[in-house]
Amino acid sequence: MHVTYEQAEKMINAAVNKAKETETPSCIAIVDSGANLKAFRRMDDAWVGSIDVAIKKAKTACLFAMPSGELGKLSQPNGQLYSIEHSNNGLITFPGGLPIIDEYGVLIGAIGVSGGTVANDYQIAKVGVAVAGVIDHPKHPWRT
Amino acid sequence: MHVTYEQAEKMINAAVNKAKETETPSCIAIVDSGANLKAFRRMDDAWVGSIDVAIKKAKTACLFAMPSGELGKLSQPNGQLYSIEHSNNGLITFPGGLPIIDEYGVLIGAIGVSGGTVANDYQIAKVGVAVAGVIDHPKHPWRT
Amino acid sequence: MHVTYEQAEKMINAAVNKAKETETPSCIAIVDSGANLKAFRRMDDAWVGSIDVAIKKAKTACLFAMPSGELGKLSQPNGQLYSIEHSNNGLITFPGGLPIIDEYGVLIGAIGVSGGTVANDYQIAKVGVAVAGVIDHPKHPWRT
Amino acid sequence: MHVTYEQAEKMINAAVNKAKETETPSCIAIVDSGANLKAFRRMDDAWVGSIDVAIKKAKTACLFAMPSGELGKLSQPNGQLYSIEHSNNGLITFPGGLPIIDEYGVLIGAIGVSGGTVANDYQIAKVGVAVAGVIDHPKHPWRT
Repeated sequence: MHVTYEQAEKMINAAVNKAKETETPSCIAIVDSGANLKAFRRMDDAWVGSIDVAIKKAKTACLFAMPSGELGKLSQPNGQLYSIEHSNNGLITFPGGLPIIDEYGVLIGAIGVSGGTVANDYQIAKVGVAVAGVIDHPKHPWRT
Repeated sequence: MHVTYEQAEKMINAAVNKAKETETPSCIAIVDSGANLKAFRRMDDAWVGSIDVAIKKAKTACLFAMPSGELGKLSQPNGQLYSIEHSNNGLITFPGGLPIIDEYGVLIGAIGVSGGTVANDYQIAKVGVAVAGVIDHPKHPWRT
Repeated sequence: MHVTYEQAEKMINAAVNKAKETETPSCIAIVDSGANLKAFRRMDDAWVGSIDVAIKKAKTACLFAMPSGELGKLSQPNGQLYSIEHSNNGLITFPGGLPIIDEYGVLIGAIGVSGGTVANDYQIAKVGVAVAGVIDHPKHPWRT
Repeated sequence: MHVTYEQAEKMINAAVNKAKETETPSCIAIVDSGANLKAFRRMDDAWVGSIDVAIKKAKTACLFAMPSGELGKLSQPNGQLYSIEHSNNGLITFPGGLPIIDEYGVLIGAIGVSGGTVANDYQIAKVGVAVAGVIDHPKHPWRT
């Protein structure tokens, strides 16, 4: 099961509207459940460096089926997963990436947002996810 | 000068409509004049392998300010630019990538399309470009 | 829909048996429908260089939902897709990679074999695919 | 000396059984003494992100002939090997990777496990190693 084109469009539009509201030029990426890019947009004046950050946040949230920031709690110095960022061609483990889990508990993709503070990125990602998925994640959400 | 968010959206929508008309599930990528990703969409059922091909076509058309297929004519065995595909972290030099050049002759970005035959990809890319740029390229179009 | 662990095991066992029969030490890779590795085995005495070839054959067959050798027909000098191998972090476009398509026409993954002649690799891959999928591929087989 | 196909199979089967016992969908990788992939399996529902983590744990344990977690003790901020993860195309230095050392003290390969907590990954890796190697490593175990 993958996020559809229509869902991805709606998610990005909702996220862009939220980003405009908070006046944060942002990059927004959607990947499917195989962590492959489905849709991407960079708002005018967003940092060029945010392109890859947004995509990697989405990838990270999909690959481990958890918010990117949760993984980041474990990857700090002396943490259980210290330096896991070196895997999978690079992960981004601070907030702004969220898995998209449908009403049946199935992982269908992920969203990644980069452009403002991580708190802001996270809020924008949440608005995007709410369009097509649940916000409260089950413990081990996906099926393959 | 870079393609704007609004232009990129209109270009992708036009390209997607053309792709639907020809029943070709496609990936469409827009990069700005720095060859950095501005917008991307993958239609449902498009090949997953087309994601990177579409992005690399757009990059190629931007980096050399010419249609990707023009570069491909020069990169064949015994051609002047044989194997230029090895540069820039990978180029795609068959048709489907077009530079976006505005009415003043300025390169503002590029579009890349992948999903069907190269002839079809090229037609879809042309429809996209027509929204925001000229189709007939001046010889050495860009300014920075 | 993805190839399951059980299917992947059976496919690899069938392929290894075929490889033993033809006395060809081989590498066999299975990827799921997102082109992510599901199972891999290297028989004793198989070339170390075949590890990556087998994995890339499977990836190629999955990413474009066609036998790797079909793509190779199009990627030759002056072909429509010349040098497509530069995309997706490297493709292998000679025979030995086959998509796994289930009885409902859904792409569920792919198999890649490397170790002997390409004709032999292809035969071993076919034996593997026959365990879990159809051999005659519909034109545009997969759904997402 | 390298781990054989038969040994690799037995190790993976033992590890998968242990993973089932602890209800942890896991990825398990075996590399030979040249750090090249010998066998790999991803159980159903294991994180897609664990594929590369498992392989890199095995590689890390082989490349330095020590448990991946031992290297991690030295790679922390202000540690002697701070950021060694940047070498060798990426290392994973938390527990779950173990060298396979035979009864004569020869390094014949390594195993890497990823899927659960690092404590759990480590236990599964130990069960795997016990099939073909010793658990208590000599100080500088390998010969080439």
